[in-house]
Amino acid sequence: MTSPGRTDALDRPPRMAVGWPASNEEDVVEDATHGPDPGPIMQLGLGFWGSKTLLSAIELGVFTELGGGPERFDALTGRLGLHERSARDFLDGLVALGMLERDGDRYANTPSTDLFLDRNKPSYIGGMLEMANARLYGFWGSLTEALRTGQAQNETKHGAANPFEAIYADPATLAGFLKAMTGISRGIALAIADRFPWADHETYFDLGTAQGDMPVQVALAHPHISGGGMDLPVVAPHFEAHVAANGLTDRLRFEPGSFFTDPLPRADVLSMGHILHDWNLEEKMTLLSRAYDALPEGGALIVFDSMIDDERRRNAFGLMMSLNMLIETPGGFDYTGADCQRWMREVGFRETRVEHLVGPDSMAVGIK
Amino acid sequence: MTSPGRTDALDRPPRMAVGWPASNEEDVVEDATHGPDPGPIMQLGLGFWGSKTLLSAIELGVFTELGGGPERFDALTGRLGLHERSARDFLDGLVALGMLERDGDRYANTPSTDLFLDRNKPSYIGGMLEMANARLYGFWGSLTEALRTGQAQNETKHGAANPFEAIYADPATLAGFLKAMTGISRGIALAIADRFPWADHETYFDLGTAQGDMPVQVALAHPHISGGGMDLPVVAPHFEAHVAANGLTDRLRFEPGSFFTDPLPRADVLSMGHILHDWNLEEKMTLLSRAYDALPEGGALIVFDSMIDDERRRNAFGLMMSLNMLIETPGGFDYTGADCQRWMREVGFRETRVEHLVGPDSMAVGIK
Repeated sequence: MTSPGRTDALDRPPRMAVGWPASNEEDVVEDATHGPDPGPIMQLGLGFWGSKTLLSAIELGVFTELGGGPERFDALTGRLGLHERSARDFLDGLVALGMLERDGDRYANTPSTDLFLDRNKPSYIGGMLEMANARLYGFWGSLTEALRTGQAQNETKHGAANPFEAIYADPATLAGFLKAMTGISRGIALAIADRFPWADHETYFDLGTAQGDMPVQVALAHPHISGGGMDLPVVAPHFEAHVAANGLTDRLRFEPGSFFTDPLPRADVLSMGHILHDWNLEEKMTLLSRAYDALPEGGALIVFDSMIDDERRRNAFGLMMSLNMLIETPGGFDYTGADCQRWMREVGFRETRVEHLVGPDSMAVGIK
Repeated sequence: MTSPGRTDALDRPPRMAVGWPASNEEDVVEDATHGPDPGPIMQLGLGFWGSKTLLSAIELGVFTELGGGPERFDALTGRLGLHERSARDFLDGLVALGMLERDGDRYANTPSTDLFLDRNKPSYIGGMLEMANARLYGFWGSLTEALRTGQAQNETKHGAANPFEAIYADPATLAGFLKAMTGISRGIALAIADRFPWADHETYFDLGTAQGDMPVQVALAHPHISGGGMDLPVVAPHFEAHVAANGLTDRLRFEPGSFFTDPLPRADVLSMGHILHDWNLEEKMTLLSRAYDALPEGGALIVFDSMIDDERRRNAFGLMMSLNMLIETPGGFDYTGADCQRWMREVGFRETRVEHLVGPDSMAVGIK
């Protein structure tokens, strides 16, 4: 939270996705000489244009199609099944948004979109954005109602007891959700595998593990670590397939159950990633308390989420993620690193710390 | 279109609305040392979160409520009718997005949001964003279908012959639309009043004039100019009210009619602002040709829109606006300044030029 950065965030709106770069510099000058510039307001307000354009590009498989190399306009639009009317505006729009490159008539992925948005690459992180396109974009259309009522606006509006019941009920939705979680957590898993003092511990279980990418990345980086992941029974085949694909079946096992009602696995280290923000305060405290009870003396709990900065004025993504919990859950909300450390101490952890990981995510570590 | 700017747009994705400023600098460093950063992709893909948050804030009247000065959290949320669950995340999110300021427990508009998003100020530009919130956000949810079929996804999907028939059919929608057009065109109107050589001309008519803010701003700045605006008859009372409010009834009159089928008013200067992009190429040529025929020798036509940069790789807003024409119209599309000059010369204009105005908007001027 450097104060230059904070000043930046307060004194002028951040630059928007759908900008008008041709005149940005001029605008800044005009801004200084002729008072406030409406540009940033219009760009944020209409920012859903650029956002939905990328989501549709992922849905249409643009980046997967270009994963094989650059393609000419006609061949590309033909294979993507794009109507001629707006195909060029769509692709050139992706160029202007920095998601594609264009050389003459040939379109190509950028290094980033080639690595992260080609479904055929293991580094694909588009699952979360596929879910955003298929579910969240529409649900967020009811944000105003959510803000007035405090009620979720997703499948639960139509009878599901909680979003997971709805997501877990349909095999295709479940598979997509679990892959999505792996996609958005991969960079975090690598950071934790790299920065946490694993040498001091031998066993590790991840709670609400989905495909189990957290234990997989930790086990791959630290051959002395064994353990596994806990999630609802329906998740088992997805976990076992991912672990087997990484050749870790001998060291990582699946523990079926609910982290609210079933005994938690015994291990030196437990983690909850993108879990705590799904639940209300009472449920959060229950989860932290159950983790504390399951740990041995000297054991550690790792909690990570898109933690909001302690002053609640800089991590816009963390604050928007909390509004996403409003849209998606009955009582979930995101929180600051200070909140998480306070809760950890309330349930008994004697030592706590917070470390920034990657992007909007930070981890809080509690030592019993 | 400076090449540094272009390089910027090509080499790295633009900074997104929903950023994680707390770690942006670190990410840039990591980016340089550890290869591609997925952050910009996730921020663009989830950019609709920040966008819809601003749109809901405008709908809820946050900036109008704060137009009277800073307010404490409890008083503000009470008056806005916000449920306690997410009120603080919502308001702090607006702080992090640069749309509000916060001092202790008191929230305040920024200079920009106070000027442009308080409905009680004449400088209000929120009309377009109110329409985006009420109509476009939902329609854009069908962008993928639009890209595959080339078909509009707004009210016309359910029977309206064209979006204007739908918009003009409902008095409230019409009033909102006309105000919205004035809001987004105000800065442009001031720029054209300031930069066009009005001293060389005496009469001016704006085609598709809505509330008539273009002729109003020009007439206010140039007492020797008279003329008015043309639009469909239903628009008359809105035009006349705006002109009367500006004390210009003696110099500006309303010409009822369709610019496709009725005779165009005779004037030294004609303009079409945010009009040409609504129509397909044949209709565009018809409008340019009719304007040419109506002008005297030496007369000028001013066309302005969010013109796409000639290389179609920098003005993301102009390209997104063209996709918005896909969503909103049967055949409309945006275009480059080079396209517009070529079309103008095809219908007979002997001299043409393009000048950047403000934000994403440029004007093309054709001299007969």
